[in-house]
Amino acid sequence: MATYTTDQRQLFTGSTIAVLKPATTEQVADIVRLAAHRGIGIVPQGGNTSYCGGATPDTSGRQIIVSLERMDRIREVDPVSMSISVDAGAILKNVQNAAANAGLLLPLSLGAEGSCRIGGNIGTNAGGLSVVRYGMTRDLLLGIEAVLSDGTVVSDMRKLRKNNTGYDIKQCFAGSEGTLGIVTGAVLRLAPLPTRRASAWLKLASGAPLAELLALVRRESADLLTTFEFMTARSIALATEAMTNPPSVRAGSGGTVLAEFASSSRHVGLDELMEAVLAEAIEAGWIEDAFLAQSESQRTAMWQLREAIPEGEKRRNGSVKHDISVPLSSIQRFLDLAASQVRSYDADLELSVYGHAGDGNLHYNVLVPPDVDRTEFTKRIESGLSLQLYDTAAALGGTFSAEHGVGRFKKHLLERYGDVGRIAAMRRIKKAFDPAGIMNPGAIVRPWRKEPAS
Amino acid sequence: MATYTTDQRQLFTGSTIAVLKPATTEQVADIVRLAAHRGIGIVPQGGNTSYCGGATPDTSGRQIIVSLERMDRIREVDPVSMSISVDAGAILKNVQNAAANAGLLLPLSLGAEGSCRIGGNIGTNAGGLSVVRYGMTRDLLLGIEAVLSDGTVVSDMRKLRKNNTGYDIKQCFAGSEGTLGIVTGAVLRLAPLPTRRASAWLKLASGAPLAELLALVRRESADLLTTFEFMTARSIALATEAMTNPPSVRAGSGGTVLAEFASSSRHVGLDELMEAVLAEAIEAGWIEDAFLAQSESQRTAMWQLREAIPEGEKRRNGSVKHDISVPLSSIQRFLDLAASQVRSYDADLELSVYGHAGDGNLHYNVLVPPDVDRTEFTKRIESGLSLQLYDTAAALGGTFSAEHGVGRFKKHLLERYGDVGRIAAMRRIKKAFDPAGIMNPGAIVRPWRKEPAS
Repeated sequence: MATYTTDQRQLFTGSTIAVLKPATTEQVADIVRLAAHRGIGIVPQGGNTSYCGGATPDTSGRQIIVSLERMDRIREVDPVSMSISVDAGAILKNVQNAAANAGLLLPLSLGAEGSCRIGGNIGTNAGGLSVVRYGMTRDLLLGIEAVLSDGTVVSDMRKLRKNNTGYDIKQCFAGSEGTLGIVTGAVLRLAPLPTRRASAWLKLASGAPLAELLALVRRESADLLTTFEFMTARSIALATEAMTNPPSVRAGSGGTVLAEFASSSRHVGLDELMEAVLAEAIEAGWIEDAFLAQSESQRTAMWQLREAIPEGEKRRNGSVKHDISVPLSSIQRFLDLAASQVRSYDADLELSVYGHAGDGNLHYNVLVPPDVDRTEFTKRIESGLSLQLYDTAAALGGTFSAEHGVGRFKKHLLERYGDVGRIAAMRRIKKAFDPAGIMNPGAIVRPWRKEPAS
Repeated sequence: MATYTTDQRQLFTGSTIAVLKPATTEQVADIVRLAAHRGIGIVPQGGNTSYCGGATPDTSGRQIIVSLERMDRIREVDPVSMSISVDAGAILKNVQNAAANAGLLLPLSLGAEGSCRIGGNIGTNAGGLSVVRYGMTRDLLLGIEAVLSDGTVVSDMRKLRKNNTGYDIKQCFAGSEGTLGIVTGAVLRLAPLPTRRASAWLKLASGAPLAELLALVRRESADLLTTFEFMTARSIALATEAMTNPPSVRAGSGGTVLAEFASSSRHVGLDELMEAVLAEAIEAGWIEDAFLAQSESQRTAMWQLREAIPEGEKRRNGSVKHDISVPLSSIQRFLDLAASQVRSYDADLELSVYGHAGDGNLHYNVLVPPDVDRTEFTKRIESGLSLQLYDTAAALGGTFSAEHGVGRFKKHLLERYGDVGRIAAMRRIKKAFDPAGIMNPGAIVRPWRKEPAS
């Protein structure tokens, strides 16, 4: 049971009456009707990879977990319509593979792809590694099937790019983290499968303007840029320590960007394009040097390094994660201000800063010192320094959660930083979809009953 | 007053107490509070270019029109963040121009762009000419400001690509046609400004598979395709008659596709790319011949022809429009079935079929014969043949409204074709946002009071 009642980061363990594993949408509807009748809270769960406790029951022992893991079918790949229809419990990696087997790309890719499930990706509006080119999960969502809190099944599994026939219910579910109903199926949009990639390791000059570099790369790559990942020297060092056979690449004095172009065409010379773009960046003085992967194994090594950062942090003693985003025009300013806040808070703290800079999204992580209790340290930082960092992001028009969601751990942040009118609208939606408050109770919005009378 | 109370297609004229023209968001909120207090229905209006009567008051004379036309400011262009913040009353063309002046592209382009306004584009989730590359209006929406039915202002004008902090309220407004509140401002995502374009006139072979041709063009253009517009010979002939100096291009025996690639890079040879792609399409036997624009004036001429089709229809005596979309894999089947339905209904009817085939979206228009009353003819077709055509689209997994919306004219179609669960969810949302039913009453959803008790 523990794998279902403990969150991914092992920060919290709840308890549950039972873990139910329906095999069909009808069974999900039956469960919801029964729970509604008995007033039992339902915690929907996919791969249980939430960083915010979005899929973890409370400690009351009066909630049930509905795991979608048995509903993992690929329902249909339509290569001509460029769409794939799946059960919500399908593992992201399996959906990627099914698309690739049909010569197409599911352009959603993230660290947890081997275990996270599509329903969870929709519930958290997952982002990941190629948002700069392809967008977030919501941008890929063509159709949805979901069970509402009274057992009503919404069935809108159309494969249409365009369908302007009233409110777009599927968009309500994207990012709702199971609080409005249980997503049981989805149709996702596919793209032409890239057959060529050019991947480069850009050693940034000190003070190199990230946003301006990004703008140059997007423009001169004809927007064939799929990835623009920023990594500091410290994050790279952590990753290197976690690898058995790390590549011999180093960071520049301003850090590193891993940039990748992708193309499905035989008629575009991607390496030449990358070389031309890098030459412009060098001429602008923004990068000291660059290394263009000459083979698939070199490309893979760069990516393995990027993906080993979380493991590197974990090996050291973990990190307190800050999944912030700011407008691109403020990214440099955030880095400067935040670094100074960390120094003032405790000059001995170490940072691991990296992330999807192409989207203005940084994982601004404070490393847990090797000799301290991780949970205690996390609590201390989150009640102090974290709020300073989030204040800084908010003051720059940014956010405390770029792609990880709100879940149970960040509700207080939503109340602190969310626009009052927007939260009022969120409560209206919650009440409309879940008047009895049985859908993932405790996640995202606090009960509307506590809202002051207007 | 008539310009405000009559719909764009001049099919319906309502009446109104007054046309109010607020200049600020606060004035909009004041109006809404007053109307809520008095129980007066509010019809928000932008450029009044709805094809579905979405912005037209009823005949009761007890509704007010709130025109956003005075709120037309460009609030901010942020070239580094690639975003633009505007008042909802800003005219689309002016927003495009403001972006272009900053070296960026607002990738929303449609026939009415000289008069439609951003609030209306959001309200209808406008599509248009470059959806295949850039998506619909909702895909460009980064931030929103809106007044709810009790005067609450939702203010979420952030310039963030990623902001997963609970329900995405702005997505509720996209496609809601003013029935959930009044959008007063928005932040839109911009893209690198294309500096090169390659535009080609593809003369389709008889029976050429449109979807397979599209897949080839997307793949081998590295997805630099921005436009894939289908036109039948009849539509081209109508357009030609409406032009003073029409280009000398002809349709192929299977019709024509106007395809355009766009690139912001100096390093990608677009003409060579287009030539390579066209050679593959010719080799596949899907196009008889192709003509690649050799100059900006040739390119403009092709576009003027495409854009003159609605005017050509109007000159003849108008058309009954069917804004259908089907999955790409069914587009050919729809064309075959629909043509046979039209022949069976009345062998003398003429069609003008064209549209955004890259999105599976066809404007399947039945021409009004020159000598008959347009309104009478429209009524007759819409109560008979139209339903047959929509039935066919629905049976193929398609929709009766791809991009025009529901408004007042298509409510019965939503009830006929909409999934029951989805309509139930829509009613919940409507009730949550507008419990008194004062926001654009009569558009999209019928009052929930008539919903049978559950």
